Amino acid sequence: MIAACSTQASHSWRQLALATEPIAAYPDPEMSIHDTIRAIIWQDSALRLLDQRLLPERQEYLTLTQSHVVAQAITDMVVRGAPAIGIAAAFGVVLAAAARYTQSRGDWKTLIEQDIADLAAARPTAVNLRWALQRMSACIAGCAADPTPVLLAEAHRIHAEDIAANRRMGELGAMLITKPCAVLTHCNTGSLATGGFGTALGVIRCAFAEGLVTQVYADETRPWLQGARLTAWELVQDRIPVTLLADAAAAHLLRQGDVRWVIVGADRIAANGDTANKIGTYALAVAARYHGVKFMVVAPTSTIDMKMADGTQVPIEQRGGDEVLMLAGQRIAAAGAKAWNPAFDVTPAGLIDVIVTERGVVLTPDTEKMTALMNSGAWHAASG
Amino acid sequence: MIAACSTQASHSWRQLALATEPIAAYPDPEMSIHDTIRAIIWQDSALRLLDQRLLPERQEYLTLTQSHVVAQAITDMVVRGAPAIGIAAAFGVVLAAAARYTQSRGDWKTLIEQDIADLAAARPTAVNLRWALQRMSACIAGCAADPTPVLLAEAHRIHAEDIAANRRMGELGAMLITKPCAVLTHCNTGSLATGGFGTALGVIRCAFAEGLVTQVYADETRPWLQGARLTAWELVQDRIPVTLLADAAAAHLLRQGDVRWVIVGADRIAANGDTANKIGTYALAVAARYHGVKFMVVAPTSTIDMKMADGTQVPIEQRGGDEVLMLAGQRIAAAGAKAWNPAFDVTPAGLIDVIVTERGVVLTPDTEKMTALMNSGAWHAASG
Repeated sequence: MIAACSTQASHSWRQLALATEPIAAYPDPEMSIHDTIRAIIWQDSALRLLDQRLLPERQEYLTLTQSHVVAQAITDMVVRGAPAIGIAAAFGVVLAAAARYTQSRGDWKTLIEQDIADLAAARPTAVNLRWALQRMSACIAGCAADPTPVLLAEAHRIHAEDIAANRRMGELGAMLITKPCAVLTHCNTGSLATGGFGTALGVIRCAFAEGLVTQVYADETRPWLQGARLTAWELVQDRIPVTLLADAAAAHLLRQGDVRWVIVGADRIAANGDTANKIGTYALAVAARYHGVKFMVVAPTSTIDMKMADGTQVPIEQRGGDEVLMLAGQRIAAAGAKAWNPAFDVTPAGLIDVIVTERGVVLTPDTEKMTALMNSGAWHAASG
Repeated sequence: MIAACSTQASHSWRQLALATEPIAAYPDPEMSIHDTIRAIIWQDSALRLLDQRLLPERQEYLTLTQSHVVAQAITDMVVRGAPAIGIAAAFGVVLAAAARYTQSRGDWKTLIEQDIADLAAARPTAVNLRWALQRMSACIAGCAADPTPVLLAEAHRIHAEDIAANRRMGELGAMLITKPCAVLTHCNTGSLATGGFGTALGVIRCAFAEGLVTQVYADETRPWLQGARLTAWELVQDRIPVTLLADAAAAHLLRQGDVRWVIVGADRIAANGDTANKIGTYALAVAARYHGVKFMVVAPTSTIDMKMADGTQVPIEQRGGDEVLMLAGQRIAAAGAKAWNPAFDVTPAGLIDVIVTERGVVLTPDTEKMTALMNSGAWHAASG
């Protein structure tokens, strides 16, 4: 669910940046002091994206009015995290439709196909990107006149449903924490990675608000430092105290006994519950089991891939060695040294105590239980 | 044994730097293409130290001619690694004696006491520092006339004995690797951390030369990046191919099955074999045991503290949070985020398959076996 994000902004984006300003208030009555961030905002017929490449140094929203610029923003990781990417792409379709409808009322449905293809190609691995675009395409098929109101409503729905699913997962996950304890998380799975509220970080938000979290520990998450750069910033903004640690210190932390739950997100969950997630997740799962610490995976059902029998089939993206060999644009390792840089690892279901989805929780997951979950029917916020 | 080292040189040191030049040849007939580095060199009545704060970017030796400058170099981590610090301090005593003897032939033994105290205070935790100074003090007590030749010979002996012990450990450790495999190491335990050759990296050197190592993997070792900055540089210099990885990727690596040995150094080994070492060592030990990978600790007997019954008594140095919150002088985490930054962790003896010392190896260590090792008498290069 969480993708790497660049620490460097390309200069072309600078031209699009509005002046630095505080995080905009979002018209969501459920937002609280522990949930103040929205990285994706539709405002004045334009898409505003919090530029995550600049965090935590600068908080700047880019204002995007063209579909191809949205696609570029996804490629350049202005926005990252599979749910967030899907939502941004949905608003990109709204922008494309307005332009194409103005261009040709007769041919806009044909012309927009290329825009949608460009959006889909912006990041190859994010499942939610194509899922969101399929929903928008279905909406386009039913459009009779000016498509903007219909498509904008659908994009807002995708956004709102994601937040609602996150809130639901937050509640369900927090219910599993039966007494106050410290928790450890990895990478960034919060408002920055989703429509808002977050998956694993959503559970931590809920549990913290309920007094169930005495301390939030966050791995810095090398090589891209999502924990240090994004999670710490997000939690500080939302008045949830956070303590960072080097990834290598996590096992030593779990040995101290304060942390009772490790809570992480997921990039893809196989039919048997095997979970692919940001590199380092597997090490945490091994250490958690060794210390009797519970391990919780939090992800919407759209992350579950029932066509994949188990985690051995999940392709592990190998990224460039420079992410390890360089730091902040400076080479840290000797010329001639190589690097092994898998972006993800797979945690076998046997090491996972519970998978939390918006449809419900699966304790000690296996294929039978995952199948039952997926057959239980979609959850809707209204019925939740 | 391995201490953190600063990535930034203080400008005052600049004045002492000679021009950048290739690593000086060292008059050691046993050195080979896989053992070319000496970070501590006595030359032309001066101590030359390879400035480890500048690696791998620049290879510069500082030339030190005064005892208090040697003490400052130890404090500033121009030289780091407990054995290396002890050797540098021994040569510092040689410089102090020459100056004090010139100052007053009658009072030099009294005057030098403050110099030795200053050297001892340069780093508080390095056991070898005080051990080396005690040897030099004993030598001073027996000096009748010009102390320089006697003290210089003793400092050279301390240096040579360290290298010989490392070679011996290298041979013993390599004998444990019964068939070619990949190995994983952590932090820097090589020529840069010792008089030369290294402890864990000495075993890897030996095993590589014997064709027993198919691939060397090195953790980058956050937060100070000793693996990325020092180990990778050292191995590249010595024509031993090295592949770096993020610390968080180690468990995923061990799952692949190529790595059959994790080989690390030690800062302090308790009487029962519990081993304090650079943060992240414990996580490796847990992951190694989970995957059936063997775990080897390599350290001279001077690292073994028989007065300490077990690892629970080892004080764990907590370092400043800025090592985690900042990177290359730049803040990476949001203001308001805290950090937990233990510099070391303790690996219980039960997770250690073997401890390799210059006196011999201890399989599945416990108090009885460690006591027998320490009672077996000192090993001398001549008898080895």
